[in-house]
Amino acid sequence: MRAAVLTALESIELQERPEPEAAPGWVVVQVESASLCGTDVHQYDGRIDTPFPRVPGHDFSGRVASVGEDVDESWVGRAVAVKPSLPCGDCPECHTDKPFDCKRKKLIGLWSDGCMTERVAVPVVNLIPRPDGVEAWQASLLEPLAVGLNTVDRLRIILGESVVVLGQGPIGLALTRLCALSGAGKLIVTDAREAPFEVSRSFGATDCVNVAETDAQEAILELTDGVGADIVIETSGFPASSAMCLDVVRKEGRLAHIGWANDLPPLPVIPIMAKTLTVYGVGGNGGRGQYERALELVRSGRFDLDPLVTHRFSLDDVAEAFDVASSKAGGAIKVIVSP
Amino acid sequence: MRAAVLTALESIELQERPEPEAAPGWVVVQVESASLCGTDVHQYDGRIDTPFPRVPGHDFSGRVASVGEDVDESWVGRAVAVKPSLPCGDCPECHTDKPFDCKRKKLIGLWSDGCMTERVAVPVVNLIPRPDGVEAWQASLLEPLAVGLNTVDRLRIILGESVVVLGQGPIGLALTRLCALSGAGKLIVTDAREAPFEVSRSFGATDCVNVAETDAQEAILELTDGVGADIVIETSGFPASSAMCLDVVRKEGRLAHIGWANDLPPLPVIPIMAKTLTVYGVGGNGGRGQYERALELVRSGRFDLDPLVTHRFSLDDVAEAFDVASSKAGGAIKVIVSP
Amino acid sequence: MRAAVLTALESIELQERPEPEAAPGWVVVQVESASLCGTDVHQYDGRIDTPFPRVPGHDFSGRVASVGEDVDESWVGRAVAVKPSLPCGDCPECHTDKPFDCKRKKLIGLWSDGCMTERVAVPVVNLIPRPDGVEAWQASLLEPLAVGLNTVDRLRIILGESVVVLGQGPIGLALTRLCALSGAGKLIVTDAREAPFEVSRSFGATDCVNVAETDAQEAILELTDGVGADIVIETSGFPASSAMCLDVVRKEGRLAHIGWANDLPPLPVIPIMAKTLTVYGVGGNGGRGQYERALELVRSGRFDLDPLVTHRFSLDDVAEAFDVASSKAGGAIKVIVSP
Amino acid sequence: MRAAVLTALESIELQERPEPEAAPGWVVVQVESASLCGTDVHQYDGRIDTPFPRVPGHDFSGRVASVGEDVDESWVGRAVAVKPSLPCGDCPECHTDKPFDCKRKKLIGLWSDGCMTERVAVPVVNLIPRPDGVEAWQASLLEPLAVGLNTVDRLRIILGESVVVLGQGPIGLALTRLCALSGAGKLIVTDAREAPFEVSRSFGATDCVNVAETDAQEAILELTDGVGADIVIETSGFPASSAMCLDVVRKEGRLAHIGWANDLPPLPVIPIMAKTLTVYGVGGNGGRGQYERALELVRSGRFDLDPLVTHRFSLDDVAEAFDVASSKAGGAIKVIVSP
Repeated sequence: MRAAVLTALESIELQERPEPEAAPGWVVVQVESASLCGTDVHQYDGRIDTPFPRVPGHDFSGRVASVGEDVDESWVGRAVAVKPSLPCGDCPECHTDKPFDCKRKKLIGLWSDGCMTERVAVPVVNLIPRPDGVEAWQASLLEPLAVGLNTVDRLRIILGESVVVLGQGPIGLALTRLCALSGAGKLIVTDAREAPFEVSRSFGATDCVNVAETDAQEAILELTDGVGADIVIETSGFPASSAMCLDVVRKEGRLAHIGWANDLPPLPVIPIMAKTLTVYGVGGNGGRGQYERALELVRSGRFDLDPLVTHRFSLDDVAEAFDVASSKAGGAIKVIVSP
Repeated sequence: MRAAVLTALESIELQERPEPEAAPGWVVVQVESASLCGTDVHQYDGRIDTPFPRVPGHDFSGRVASVGEDVDESWVGRAVAVKPSLPCGDCPECHTDKPFDCKRKKLIGLWSDGCMTERVAVPVVNLIPRPDGVEAWQASLLEPLAVGLNTVDRLRIILGESVVVLGQGPIGLALTRLCALSGAGKLIVTDAREAPFEVSRSFGATDCVNVAETDAQEAILELTDGVGADIVIETSGFPASSAMCLDVVRKEGRLAHIGWANDLPPLPVIPIMAKTLTVYGVGGNGGRGQYERALELVRSGRFDLDPLVTHRFSLDDVAEAFDVASSKAGGAIKVIVSP
Repeated sequence: MRAAVLTALESIELQERPEPEAAPGWVVVQVESASLCGTDVHQYDGRIDTPFPRVPGHDFSGRVASVGEDVDESWVGRAVAVKPSLPCGDCPECHTDKPFDCKRKKLIGLWSDGCMTERVAVPVVNLIPRPDGVEAWQASLLEPLAVGLNTVDRLRIILGESVVVLGQGPIGLALTRLCALSGAGKLIVTDAREAPFEVSRSFGATDCVNVAETDAQEAILELTDGVGADIVIETSGFPASSAMCLDVVRKEGRLAHIGWANDLPPLPVIPIMAKTLTVYGVGGNGGRGQYERALELVRSGRFDLDPLVTHRFSLDDVAEAFDVASSKAGGAIKVIVSP
Repeated sequence: MRAAVLTALESIELQERPEPEAAPGWVVVQVESASLCGTDVHQYDGRIDTPFPRVPGHDFSGRVASVGEDVDESWVGRAVAVKPSLPCGDCPECHTDKPFDCKRKKLIGLWSDGCMTERVAVPVVNLIPRPDGVEAWQASLLEPLAVGLNTVDRLRIILGESVVVLGQGPIGLALTRLCALSGAGKLIVTDAREAPFEVSRSFGATDCVNVAETDAQEAILELTDGVGADIVIETSGFPASSAMCLDVVRKEGRLAHIGWANDLPPLPVIPIMAKTLTVYGVGGNGGRGQYERALELVRSGRFDLDPLVTHRFSLDDVAEAFDVASSKAGGAIKVIVSP
């Protein structure tokens, strides 16, 4: 079968690979749609270390093609979304039926070959049935929503609180929509490009600040009567944005860090104490029902994924897909690849 | 000046009354708009005991006409909304600058003469400045929102939870909108009339159940896959509705009781234990910022009060106003009286 | 093997029964110690319906004697405590590796034959390894602690809050100790007997009120400066005690109901609203780590079970054990039976 | 009257000062006992900038000697503890009866002359009546408890959680006791001196780690089965201790920062995200009832202050008092000065 293989930095090519097999407790999924995530792009551009060769990709959907031992045959043919982290199968949590508490979960596509291919094997516990009314491309875009849910679940927004979302990439846009749905009052977003702001506004942002043109700190303080926002969520992973967080959150406010980059500046402790802040680190999708709830938000129409998808490619054109996602050419937000 | 006076059950008439004076710490407010609340109506129809004669009304807005001793002169002429409960002025809380923790707060219009008149005296601590962009009639409709905020603040809805609001009177409709804004997923409402459902839907209800035509319990269970809703909010004050709460909430779910009536059936304890429920009693607007936040929801346009107002009368026609509000003729939801 | 069998109301006798066998996923446990719980006693005295004949008992410890298919052989010989509720094995939760979220869990000893015998079969997921330093008799007394933990986990006591525990049977005493450990300030307990108060005091109660001699409501209000307690926990299951709850909890306070009896009076709704109360129903041990934490409290010495055990019998004297536990003769609190 | 005056770095001397007068809303307190805090010591040793000359001190108790205009005469002669932060009197919060929400509160003894004297003027809102059974020296030691309460109130310890308190100075010891009272299970403390550990153990610490002799990180991981503690509280203000926090807290754990020093290393963001941590900054005593609750913990005997007080001096010997507190000679923990 065909698979997209990262062979070196900024080098991805189609190769012929052997068919996967389903071990006991595993299934083989026929990939119908896969989306490119920041992680894939950073494996490609070198900001995240990855072994070569590697088939990238972890956010995908498809149909069960075959099942391994100990897996119910009725799975075959079912449409599914797939949770992207593989439990290690060998720790106390995995041995006691709590695989999603596994502390050694590994992201598919990074620690093992991923979904930018025709078929891929995953544990049956990673499957979520895809309900009627949710299309394959939608079910391949759930991870930013699941990560966002893991964030708003911890922030517990009180109706009317002011929220700042720094960065309007896919995770930032997902959080814009999820905060709007969760009761945010004033909902200020920032980005260095104008391109995503149309989506931001359709998702509920009340104020969009272009950091390339405006002093963002000054703008946010002015929009919050000089006291700062109740909640600040940093999703950009840019040092300047991260450094600004403590200055635009109000006394006794809350701060969430999601944007991940090796060069993030550390947080000074004195202002965290002086302002009596609470800082939440968000490291993933939580793995406790967030995927299922993300799917329901899409199914019910409360989260419209359509504005996020700017580009679609076939697997044959995967090189172009990575080029677009990496360069963000043409206002790229989410790029989808279909085998 | 003119005042509407309840002289006996179902009897309200205009009378000439002496002008109020502002005691130290108090102000006189020129009433610009007042709304009729269930309490006023029940004083009129006898379901709530009230001394006669009594000027009813507590949800109102206006402009400061004059100020008493120890009150800043700059209040004069300012547009204000007015919080409806008077601190007793004589308890430890009132003596230590925490009047809104006063345990003996009394509702104006019930325990003292209220706002269905031209001018009324209130403590300065009850005033909230009315900002630009909020009209007088809007500022006289804040109480159902404040009570609703006091409810959702305690329920802390998690994004996507299913919510049932029993009863779609003004408080029920306020909660429908506030739950939609707070992240409710499936949002089921009930009422014995079709009339309010158009408003319910515009406020975000996903399913409307007419209890006069349908077995509501069966309908709600069917809409929640047989397990019941995450959250049930009883606002109707009807015995049958109250009795149903425990049957339509899921195991480990939450229940809020707001609808107040003397004939509510008591709650059996066994199902509260067996289903591991949490039951919240909501007795008012909380008095800790809810009014200010309600005003901001209106100002920002996130809560559109317009669909709630079905009838408007001048003070001269107050008898008709009470008749309409009491009979709910013509699909009445909220009735406004302007001097 | 020998088993204690309830043959009719107030009739229990030793019988010879066939050895249990371990189905796939199950183990056979050699019982070392079992304790009598209120449920067992009510099966015996008729306040809880039970089919006859029935081997009662669910709170026990022992050693794994043999294992069924799919169970790790290394379990054989290990000392274990046993969680008392059997997952149904056939619902969506059981099929997806979340047996403790099973909504049809059934108590062993009530819905199937229990532990008042020499050996009993249970699912391996119900086992908790018994660590060094915890004796078998201690590991057979964990259920009241697990139920109590499920209660304090939901109440989230703030350091210094006043707590009332109504009833000082085993669950009430467990809650007295757990509330003391969790930060209760004034800790008032009630019972109709003097007998348990010595234990109550050693567990941290600050005030003991004998409801047979004192007006408990008056006493509690006096001890709380007339405002009522922050938290009231009803464990007695007595109508008079349950009826008093709403009168001795402060405005905006919290109430937990655990005491289970068919004749509990229902809760009036008006005071729950007027006092803005939160009412927690507690229906069991939660099944999410409470057993493991109970075991650790015992192991670390923070919960001393010794004062709770007033009587010990061999299996041969099980009839006398039930007689003592039922009559509460000799100040009986907890009765232990060892095969 | 006599006052201790900081005239330069490490220089404190007794001087004659004019009597204070009580402005409207203020009172003059006759100082009975004052304790030295880290802030005073750092003003003396130069780690905190302070204008000279300055009368230091803010944690004290005494009796009301006289009252200003608008203050109830019945205060005269009453025994009081005094909250140490002065509201600015000029902001929106101060003008609307919420002085303790004042964002410009200033610590007495740092921003204005303090309590190391015979008499001092403070606003009446800063007074707390000292109840029978609490002595003056006890009421001059409340600040570490109030700061500690503000910490545990936010951490909301669940019964049995493991807690590490880094540093066993007065705040660290206060937190050791407050965490023990709040339900901590394993309670590990660290310090670079053996001296405080005897107090730590009497306050409930289960394990004491001398960082001068042991690899603290290794020791803590070993005591927590290699996974780290549920909660880590940094009180030492030492860079090495602060840097260790992220390594000894478990995944999904909580971290509180209280120890204040200009040279604290900043917190790297990646581990906060990777471990899904929550970080609480604590900047003071909260000002919302913590002082009153601290007093009640002392009155009820649940917090025994006696072990904290290692040295007592008269005002005449204030120079020696500062020398001892600064050098920590003789195992000094808390030093008390009585006029």
